Amino acid sequence: MTELEKQGLLAKEAARALSIATTDVKNRALLSIADALEENMGEWLKANQQDIEEAKRAGMKESLLDRLALTPGRVKGVADGVRQAAALPDPVGETISENVRPNGLVIRKKRVPLGVIGIIYEARPNVTVDAAALCLKSGNACILRGGKEAIRSNLAAEKIMRGALQKAGLPADCIQLVKDTSRESAQELMRLNAYVDVLIPRGGAGLIRAVTSQSSVPVIRTGEGVCHVYVDENADLDMAASILFNAKCSRPSVCNAAECVLVHENIAPEFWKKALPLLDQKNVVLRADEKAKALLGSRAESACEEDWDTEFGDYTLAVKTVKGLDEALDFIARHGTQHSECIVTKDAARAERFLNEVDAAAVYWNASTRFTDGGEFGLGAEIGISTQKLHARGPMGLEEMTSWKYVISGTGQVR
Amino acid sequence: MTELEKQGLLAKEAARALSIATTDVKNRALLSIADALEENMGEWLKANQQDIEEAKRAGMKESLLDRLALTPGRVKGVADGVRQAAALPDPVGETISENVRPNGLVIRKKRVPLGVIGIIYEARPNVTVDAAALCLKSGNACILRGGKEAIRSNLAAEKIMRGALQKAGLPADCIQLVKDTSRESAQELMRLNAYVDVLIPRGGAGLIRAVTSQSSVPVIRTGEGVCHVYVDENADLDMAASILFNAKCSRPSVCNAAECVLVHENIAPEFWKKALPLLDQKNVVLRADEKAKALLGSRAESACEEDWDTEFGDYTLAVKTVKGLDEALDFIARHGTQHSECIVTKDAARAERFLNEVDAAAVYWNASTRFTDGGEFGLGAEIGISTQKLHARGPMGLEEMTSWKYVISGTGQVR
Repeated sequence: MTELEKQGLLAKEAARALSIATTDVKNRALLSIADALEENMGEWLKANQQDIEEAKRAGMKESLLDRLALTPGRVKGVADGVRQAAALPDPVGETISENVRPNGLVIRKKRVPLGVIGIIYEARPNVTVDAAALCLKSGNACILRGGKEAIRSNLAAEKIMRGALQKAGLPADCIQLVKDTSRESAQELMRLNAYVDVLIPRGGAGLIRAVTSQSSVPVIRTGEGVCHVYVDENADLDMAASILFNAKCSRPSVCNAAECVLVHENIAPEFWKKALPLLDQKNVVLRADEKAKALLGSRAESACEEDWDTEFGDYTLAVKTVKGLDEALDFIARHGTQHSECIVTKDAARAERFLNEVDAAAVYWNASTRFTDGGEFGLGAEIGISTQKLHARGPMGLEEMTSWKYVISGTGQVR
Repeated sequence: MTELEKQGLLAKEAARALSIATTDVKNRALLSIADALEENMGEWLKANQQDIEEAKRAGMKESLLDRLALTPGRVKGVADGVRQAAALPDPVGETISENVRPNGLVIRKKRVPLGVIGIIYEARPNVTVDAAALCLKSGNACILRGGKEAIRSNLAAEKIMRGALQKAGLPADCIQLVKDTSRESAQELMRLNAYVDVLIPRGGAGLIRAVTSQSSVPVIRTGEGVCHVYVDENADLDMAASILFNAKCSRPSVCNAAECVLVHENIAPEFWKKALPLLDQKNVVLRADEKAKALLGSRAESACEEDWDTEFGDYTLAVKTVKGLDEALDFIARHGTQHSECIVTKDAARAERFLNEVDAAAVYWNASTRFTDGGEFGLGAEIGISTQKLHARGPMGLEEMTSWKYVISGTGQVR
């Protein structure tokens, strides 16, 4: 048995105990984890400092160093996140439906944990705790495989959390970190069907594609977002400019940010008069098709085919002029990633068509794509945003981290 | 572009049209398919006859020939199944939840089709129509990849169904058969992420394992069932014998049949007095552990380790003696396939523990495992029985063949 298979077996056994733990016990464990993180903050920060120094030596970029770094304020934030998880309703045990059959069998559909959740992520040590807390609250054991740059931070967090679990009377093996951060360990985790029920990759498009294509464990694909804002002929153009500016510029690195605006040709000159001054505030680079280029002149670069399928992740926006709703719908069907799509219009019938016909996790009428988020949707917290249609779509809250079982009571019925 | 990629693209386009088709249009198409199958029965039977002859030449076993064969009665049954699908409620369009956020955004969670469903199955021509009908009713386009032994039957069924679709005003490409029945075509379908949203393998354990391990398209794992009946110390032994006999013998080839009985050591002699006469009616082969062998003598063979993990699929039953509930729970955790598990007992507290702690799609108290079935559960119809925890667990009805989208209406909200 390999090291990881041993971890899998222990996780599966721990999941059995955790699946029947009461809400009280799970909440006590979460509060104990939050307290322990603050009490042992020094230990966690020290380990993180070593990761940071090593990363600097290896020449890590400033923006990545920032994601890797913990501070007392960030640790407090992570601990508070764990307390919030404790305060959320427990999805496990709910009777989803009940049904008495003509033969007298009573069939209840009951919500249960998924079991063992594997999470593969990059160098963000806060994810180690955030993900473990949501798994614990939803009754799932987790196997966490973080990036090698954060290994010391992650080992320290794991130690603190496992100690707190034991204090609360739950098996420490509910939370396990993969110590080997080689590519091989990630690949082995992707084939650990015997012990892992679901794999959730959290990170860039490259990671997510690799996991999707190599995993034999069921995967929830998260994250990739090439999101569009379609400005219709009948849009309130001030609203359209404000929505586009927010969708592109409020946080361009995240998956629900807009990457492309589709502008109805009839109102394009008017629209750009409103939108350009806003986009200029952030020096947004425009990659425009020919028609838009004719309007925007030297303010825009010429778009190439690739731009329509690119998640820029920065202050770059693709610009496409369309003849109307049908062309917009076709364009989104071809280039969207089924994440978040928006129409700005005063025409309810056109909005209705857009909302019905666009195939995406979230479709918006007159609101920014940036709202696709567990907190904004009222789900309390999220483990990621699913862009697949199987199991969960859009923000995955605690309920989406569960499955169900059928519980059938009889009096000797046979078939 | 390969032939299959072309089919994928056409299926994706057809799925867009089908996703917004009304219930009436879909039902009209289903009734038109049912009528066309009966009207063109001669054509379908003739093609099937050619498959049968070819299979006989190739030396196919009698039992497999029977699964491959169509008769006028079977065609009528298939057509009636399609009419039943038309009569079921349409899951698509349902508002699952609605939520007005403090910022005024109205967020509706709406049920939508999955999109394009791929189905890989073996040589049963009725599956071609059954699966296509359920996909159509749930608004999904389908790509069907059946076994090579049934290719002529499947081509004939595809032709009849596509004609009926067009007559009803839906794109023929909602239903497509993969013409190439080589292993390579199945493997290509498993990697067709760009066009296929879900893959459902229907067939033996070998097929299902191959698809699970090779597919990058999300898979619903169906079917494998090593199901147990645990006869507790406090069981009504007549009931236990009757349930075991039914679970093992009413249809041993199916996945919800029992493969192993766990007998509490305190009542084992009494139990076998009741159970043996029933099992003898079908000459059930017993593979027993040492303790049971001591009781059963020459009536039983000695079990080997492999027997505990085998889906016999025939009149063979593994027999294990246990000291009590805990040992039974551990044994099922180790050897079960998370399909259907049963306890027979008069003790409600023990039943409660069993129902809570056993991790399976369906857990039974005093009823046969054979009830795990979409029809028996009141789901109307099923595309398969899922033994995974992601997306769907247990019988998959029309609702389990859908996803959802979030539909958000605003008045210019930005974040």
